Amino acid sequence: MTPESIAQPRVAVFGAGGYAGALCARLIERHPTFELAAVTARSDVGRSLDDVYPHHRVRRVLEELDLDRHGDVEAAIVAYPHGAAAELVAQLRGRGVRVIDLSADFRLRDARVYAEWYRDHPAPALIEEAVYGLPELYREQVIGADLVANPGCFPTAAILGLAPLARAGVIADVVIDAKTGVSGAGRGASDKTHFVTVDENMNPYSVPRHRHTPEIEQELAVLGARRPITFTTHLIPLDQGELLSCYVTPAEPLDEPEARALYAEAYAEEPFVEVVERLPGVKDVRETNMCRISVHGDARTGRVLVFAALDNLWKGTASQAIQNLNLMFARPEGEGITTR
Amino acid sequence: MTPESIAQPRVAVFGAGGYAGALCARLIERHPTFELAAVTARSDVGRSLDDVYPHHRVRRVLEELDLDRHGDVEAAIVAYPHGAAAELVAQLRGRGVRVIDLSADFRLRDARVYAEWYRDHPAPALIEEAVYGLPELYREQVIGADLVANPGCFPTAAILGLAPLARAGVIADVVIDAKTGVSGAGRGASDKTHFVTVDENMNPYSVPRHRHTPEIEQELAVLGARRPITFTTHLIPLDQGELLSCYVTPAEPLDEPEARALYAEAYAEEPFVEVVERLPGVKDVRETNMCRISVHGDARTGRVLVFAALDNLWKGTASQAIQNLNLMFARPEGEGITTR
Amino acid sequence: MTPESIAQPRVAVFGAGGYAGALCARLIERHPTFELAAVTARSDVGRSLDDVYPHHRVRRVLEELDLDRHGDVEAAIVAYPHGAAAELVAQLRGRGVRVIDLSADFRLRDARVYAEWYRDHPAPALIEEAVYGLPELYREQVIGADLVANPGCFPTAAILGLAPLARAGVIADVVIDAKTGVSGAGRGASDKTHFVTVDENMNPYSVPRHRHTPEIEQELAVLGARRPITFTTHLIPLDQGELLSCYVTPAEPLDEPEARALYAEAYAEEPFVEVVERLPGVKDVRETNMCRISVHGDARTGRVLVFAALDNLWKGTASQAIQNLNLMFARPEGEGITTR
Amino acid sequence: MTPESIAQPRVAVFGAGGYAGALCARLIERHPTFELAAVTARSDVGRSLDDVYPHHRVRRVLEELDLDRHGDVEAAIVAYPHGAAAELVAQLRGRGVRVIDLSADFRLRDARVYAEWYRDHPAPALIEEAVYGLPELYREQVIGADLVANPGCFPTAAILGLAPLARAGVIADVVIDAKTGVSGAGRGASDKTHFVTVDENMNPYSVPRHRHTPEIEQELAVLGARRPITFTTHLIPLDQGELLSCYVTPAEPLDEPEARALYAEAYAEEPFVEVVERLPGVKDVRETNMCRISVHGDARTGRVLVFAALDNLWKGTASQAIQNLNLMFARPEGEGITTR
Repeated sequence: MTPESIAQPRVAVFGAGGYAGALCARLIERHPTFELAAVTARSDVGRSLDDVYPHHRVRRVLEELDLDRHGDVEAAIVAYPHGAAAELVAQLRGRGVRVIDLSADFRLRDARVYAEWYRDHPAPALIEEAVYGLPELYREQVIGADLVANPGCFPTAAILGLAPLARAGVIADVVIDAKTGVSGAGRGASDKTHFVTVDENMNPYSVPRHRHTPEIEQELAVLGARRPITFTTHLIPLDQGELLSCYVTPAEPLDEPEARALYAEAYAEEPFVEVVERLPGVKDVRETNMCRISVHGDARTGRVLVFAALDNLWKGTASQAIQNLNLMFARPEGEGITTR
Repeated sequence: MTPESIAQPRVAVFGAGGYAGALCARLIERHPTFELAAVTARSDVGRSLDDVYPHHRVRRVLEELDLDRHGDVEAAIVAYPHGAAAELVAQLRGRGVRVIDLSADFRLRDARVYAEWYRDHPAPALIEEAVYGLPELYREQVIGADLVANPGCFPTAAILGLAPLARAGVIADVVIDAKTGVSGAGRGASDKTHFVTVDENMNPYSVPRHRHTPEIEQELAVLGARRPITFTTHLIPLDQGELLSCYVTPAEPLDEPEARALYAEAYAEEPFVEVVERLPGVKDVRETNMCRISVHGDARTGRVLVFAALDNLWKGTASQAIQNLNLMFARPEGEGITTR
Repeated sequence: MTPESIAQPRVAVFGAGGYAGALCARLIERHPTFELAAVTARSDVGRSLDDVYPHHRVRRVLEELDLDRHGDVEAAIVAYPHGAAAELVAQLRGRGVRVIDLSADFRLRDARVYAEWYRDHPAPALIEEAVYGLPELYREQVIGADLVANPGCFPTAAILGLAPLARAGVIADVVIDAKTGVSGAGRGASDKTHFVTVDENMNPYSVPRHRHTPEIEQELAVLGARRPITFTTHLIPLDQGELLSCYVTPAEPLDEPEARALYAEAYAEEPFVEVVERLPGVKDVRETNMCRISVHGDARTGRVLVFAALDNLWKGTASQAIQNLNLMFARPEGEGITTR
Repeated sequence: MTPESIAQPRVAVFGAGGYAGALCARLIERHPTFELAAVTARSDVGRSLDDVYPHHRVRRVLEELDLDRHGDVEAAIVAYPHGAAAELVAQLRGRGVRVIDLSADFRLRDARVYAEWYRDHPAPALIEEAVYGLPELYREQVIGADLVANPGCFPTAAILGLAPLARAGVIADVVIDAKTGVSGAGRGASDKTHFVTVDENMNPYSVPRHRHTPEIEQELAVLGARRPITFTTHLIPLDQGELLSCYVTPAEPLDEPEARALYAEAYAEEPFVEVVERLPGVKDVRETNMCRISVHGDARTGRVLVFAALDNLWKGTASQAIQNLNLMFARPEGEGITTR
């Protein structure tokens, strides 16, 4: 029996106590095709997801993980921290469960690069099996994948924002200045995520080595842009939303119409990438699976400026996971995640 | 030697790692008369206060409390949680140190009421010595006090907002609907104070038994209003600021001009109470020692409406502590806390 | 031919340039049954709605009203200011168009009351035809209505929040303290709605005569509570969301279980009213058609406290209009407005 | 009689109805040396400044400009829009009044550059007289100046943030990504500054030609960095505060310690520039005259990253104007603007 032949594939969400996992649970529970089989968490066990996140209205109790009970599913979304995810993914794959992993554990194809930016890889044998789940680049591979490494939120915006230029071979150098809302920092409560710290404030963080850097570089290199990038991140007082400002030095002169033509062509058929002339704001894409991009030429310096906005919890994580799940189970790509 | 004869009284702040204690430290360090003798904390020991709160620019290292080293001061501000404060206050009083306690431990004159709302009182013998540090009501007593119980932020606004009516004997019943920014919840990091929880949200909390209730009732009773009050609190997405909306059913008809006359008279000479016609906003009093009040009559229902705004960290806590300290050491009442 | 027999009723939105009208247009455009026939505006004519409100993704050009072109529809939503709406409503009714009016013009059944709080009524002859569009109270009447007066946002929360007590005859007196986000003030740009004014601020407004007062009183009186109410409103720094704190003095003792039983019974079958024990926050209902209510007894004062939260643009206006439209055209009540 | 010999120079603020002018009025009114001679405005004439901006507590009535009455002062601050300022400045200089102009009209030394970015210069004859009022670069010239062009908020941060590198001749190329709170857009009410538009949003604006670009380039060129820069700005949901992220490609290898040494040396004696290791946040400098800077090397790319934070209304405009005024009248540079 092929996965596609199952009328209503059962999907478990492991790590549903965090922002991304909880949203995945909501999207699956409302999904016309999938059945939400289980939600597990490492804290808050025994609480209803509805009590932790009232606005999601998912009336399911968070359980402690028990693979004998929760592993009998067609697919799983793993929303564990980096490092902790790999072990669970390996167990699930051992049971034949198709997995979408939200962590960074299977995004980098080279275990040495992973080791350089994270730690020794906990399950290097699985890396080869993993498909990088950015449908706009790897749609065909995702369709047949058993293990999808769901991209990071910043890489999703950065790669979508730069792919047309990278593919055209015109990126000599790039600076990416990223700005994100606080949900990107996760649910962990600390001085850094306390309302009083963040409110009326903004600051850079993880300078100069943010862990999403090698992920962006890997994918740009696949497309043809092999130089190291400059990538910095800033915390902004809003809950959901990411804006990336990309400053590209072209390898050869590239004016605004030429640059825009590359984007128009690249994304003409993409349902979840909007190329616009108006400068994008994160409110334009809030709670959607959209990445909204505008491209501008600066005649004075010859630079090409690209702005890309998305919702870090949606296209940046959870709704993109559902987009991948739809592809894996031969469903319409936008099922359950299309803007109201 | 009387305290007043000391040119530059030394003041220690115990519990300077929290929002209120840190602000006290800043106000004392900038104060023309007092010397900041020490700052202690229970976490963050060894960090510079400047590192924890860059905007205060107090370059002093947080130390672990050692009374033999830190107790040789003319005065201390104790910024400990309820219950924990009383013990330290007792030790300080035993050394002859004059104390301003920011906790609730010495605000209630009846240990049984304290026990009903908090726990068994840890130092009941000291209650009688304590003066309730609302200068607008107890200025003379504060001047000679050795132990000042600094009022709660909500009670400060509520009592200032209702005192003229209470004193006139016209309060038959009152509902107080309080709205506060997040700094009132303190520096503790939790789901409740996480930016993502608070942002774009508002909700009631501690319903129907907020611990500031007996403090407000006690002081209104002293002024002549002896009925239980309805007092509820709401968390609002801003950092500093409190707004109390007081709905008074008068014992006898009281029109707007009559009500306003009571306030004009009560506060004509008070430097830190502003009676205005315009409806007050918390931004009007941000980072000041001001309580801003407006009074309105509702002819349809006969009710008198009073709105009182203050900054919970300033007039609601830290700058009011300095106001008290100024009185205790015969300094001009507004020294070091007057609006730029 | 009855309206129900039309497969896809055409609906025009007049006044789609404002927040409420634009959201109505979005909800209708995405609705499985209705067809968005036209969007008109009084400013921004010629601009795409998508350009004014990118996040709605409604690619329709705002046109100047021309009833000969736009009046040939089965239904219309009129999103005009108070006073201006009545004239257009009269013209549409003259053409046989079924109308949902978002303004206050047909909410008050007594033209004298309207005159007292607004101005002389511009179309008093139509008042009798109008049905007050709160489905939880007037579902049957809405089904057959040709003119629905869509309730105000505050009255929706207040009436839903107090109806069970009013109907039981136990309200001796009530104070309603309302808190609202800024979208309730509409799209008009002024000092009052400027970001810098609102941010980190909160203040009462329209004290003591907010125009929603008679609307609330009218409906509470229908249910049996005839006394004037105290109703005040406060502006809070968030975009969408309303929280009403209702302080009820019961006519006779009513404890918490008794009060809660009234609500459980009243709303057991209502899909869009949630009665909960947890204190409600506006984020719980953001972008939903839900009104979320909790009920609490205060044994010390005998008061019953009711908190009601909704999204002022959704259940407070636009999604409630669609709820009414669904009823009028015999569609499932939640079609097109049910939470994802 | 030299200006310095006047005990209490009278200073008028023209254009005190806007954010910057109003703050100048407050700082002068509280200043130990200067006397606030008059406040004029073009709208709000007749209103008390205290009514427009309650938190400033300046009880002065905004008057219509009448130079015969208001021109008899030792100094004036002109807070008019670009273009409108020059004419008033010329009139004031004709009367011998020393002027600090907050507009861009006298910042650019080349009228042709002004014409390219703004319009034909309204008073080119005065350009030569003007001193660019960034005290950290032009302290000596400001002391003797009769006309000071107060820098733009972005240029203040950009130039302070890059001056040590520019002076060392190591800037081969630079990208400046600027993020600002909404007060930078001024008090004008529009869709763009409406709370509902800005809240939970962020977006680039004025791409790719922000008018502060030539001002930054001019001053960097004076210091030795002559290439065009890339400069973009982003609107962030907070009221006051600016953060500039500067990405410098050095002309020759420059590691982090070398870069930091340049800054330590450049700013060792500057009271209003803080060079720190911790990544700066705008809250660190809120309502101060401080510019806070951190410098980082990115070994992977060889880039030097500089982050500079300031309060756009304070060091970015009004308190820097007072800093200049202090210099012009031989007062201590920080008088009246030093952090509490």
